[in-house]
Amino acid sequence: MAGKGVYRYDIIQRDADFTNACTHISLMNHILQAAGDDADLNGFGIGDLNVGNCSWVISRMCTEFGRRPSQGESIAVRTWVSEVGRFMTTRNMEVTDGAGEVIARTVTQWAVIDIDTRRAVDIRANIDYKGAVSDEPSPVDTPQRIPRLDCVPVAEKTVAYSDTDFNRHMNAMKYIEWVIDHLPVEELTSGRLRRIDINFLKEAVLGQRLTLHTLPDDPGRRYEIREAASGEPLCRCSFTFE
Amino acid sequence: MAGKGVYRYDIIQRDADFTNACTHISLMNHILQAAGDDADLNGFGIGDLNVGNCSWVISRMCTEFGRRPSQGESIAVRTWVSEVGRFMTTRNMEVTDGAGEVIARTVTQWAVIDIDTRRAVDIRANIDYKGAVSDEPSPVDTPQRIPRLDCVPVAEKTVAYSDTDFNRHMNAMKYIEWVIDHLPVEELTSGRLRRIDINFLKEAVLGQRLTLHTLPDDPGRRYEIREAASGEPLCRCSFTFE
Repeated sequence: MAGKGVYRYDIIQRDADFTNACTHISLMNHILQAAGDDADLNGFGIGDLNVGNCSWVISRMCTEFGRRPSQGESIAVRTWVSEVGRFMTTRNMEVTDGAGEVIARTVTQWAVIDIDTRRAVDIRANIDYKGAVSDEPSPVDTPQRIPRLDCVPVAEKTVAYSDTDFNRHMNAMKYIEWVIDHLPVEELTSGRLRRIDINFLKEAVLGQRLTLHTLPDDPGRRYEIREAASGEPLCRCSFTFE
Repeated sequence: MAGKGVYRYDIIQRDADFTNACTHISLMNHILQAAGDDADLNGFGIGDLNVGNCSWVISRMCTEFGRRPSQGESIAVRTWVSEVGRFMTTRNMEVTDGAGEVIARTVTQWAVIDIDTRRAVDIRANIDYKGAVSDEPSPVDTPQRIPRLDCVPVAEKTVAYSDTDFNRHMNAMKYIEWVIDHLPVEELTSGRLRRIDINFLKEAVLGQRLTLHTLPDDPGRRYEIREAASGEPLCRCSFTFE
């Protein structure tokens, strides 16, 4: 089990959209929950790291989607660590439905930071990772690096209480939910969204003003979230439709 | 068990705010999930009603809060129906923590509508409710009626994909989440929020523009959500602090 845990979740009403299918965001939330559950079980969860004044920070993520599961189904998220570098580690997830069909695949890349300095620390020197690493490779291509976009603002918002996580930072999936709310609903629910790539650059904090930028008619469907006052990029993501 | 089910839920990371406590919204989402689970088990869930072209509509809700549970705790939601009128039924919920302490109490009032006409139908003529009703009274005062507010707009938004439920309507709890995001964070996390009363008047639909109204310095902390174009009220709620 160590390093290759399987975590089961039920798709309930609040996960589903009006097509009765689990939203991409809820599916990715379950995927990240499995990452947290598995790290906890292996002794290097957020709570364990906090003891040493450190924390996990997600740097990149990609998810490839097949069929979205329906409300009432159960899913199993299998997760394993495939690489541990000095400043970055790779964790993979594969989601299967009740029939055993793989319906989503994810690759995530994480750093460990010192909570006070916000600087990355040496993962191999700080975490006993040996029992948790698997030889199995990542199930899809690793998350692509998305370069700075020369693009126009299309929306703005203030980071609200409901957007934040245990750190008073905007929850990573809330960035993506905001972007998804600007995609045409018909495309989202068409079943043709195949892949999302995300680069997390900096955390937004409660009360901060954000702007959302995109390129009109960009076939790569790339988006960038910036801190409104400074223009500093906080997150970039791209959506690949079939 | 019939009519007096108990449903258990784990408080996980996505339920908690930066104080590590379950948000009021997540707690109310679990409470409503128990209502749905219990109706399903008793044969009059949304799916059962849809067969007869009907659906449940929540009309009023109040929740009184004690201690908010922390991430990692499990809660049990006990629910029972105390009254079945011709056009309105009352469902109650009591939330206990692992030590058996009651930490929240809810009263909800529901109508059944015909999906095509959107008109209320006679509940007693359409649902076999006999096995599900209990003599136990509601655990707190029933939800108060909140009159029309003569108040000023403080925010606006468009109903987004992530706000909607299986009906393409704005999820009931998303109304309240929007209001809560306008309350001072320090008060929300102070533990002094004792009660929320909600009147659901009309459903907002995907893409609709909404305005949020309140009275400055209102000791009753009342809010009203309106359809922006028509000014028609959709939801009113009030927050009682200790």
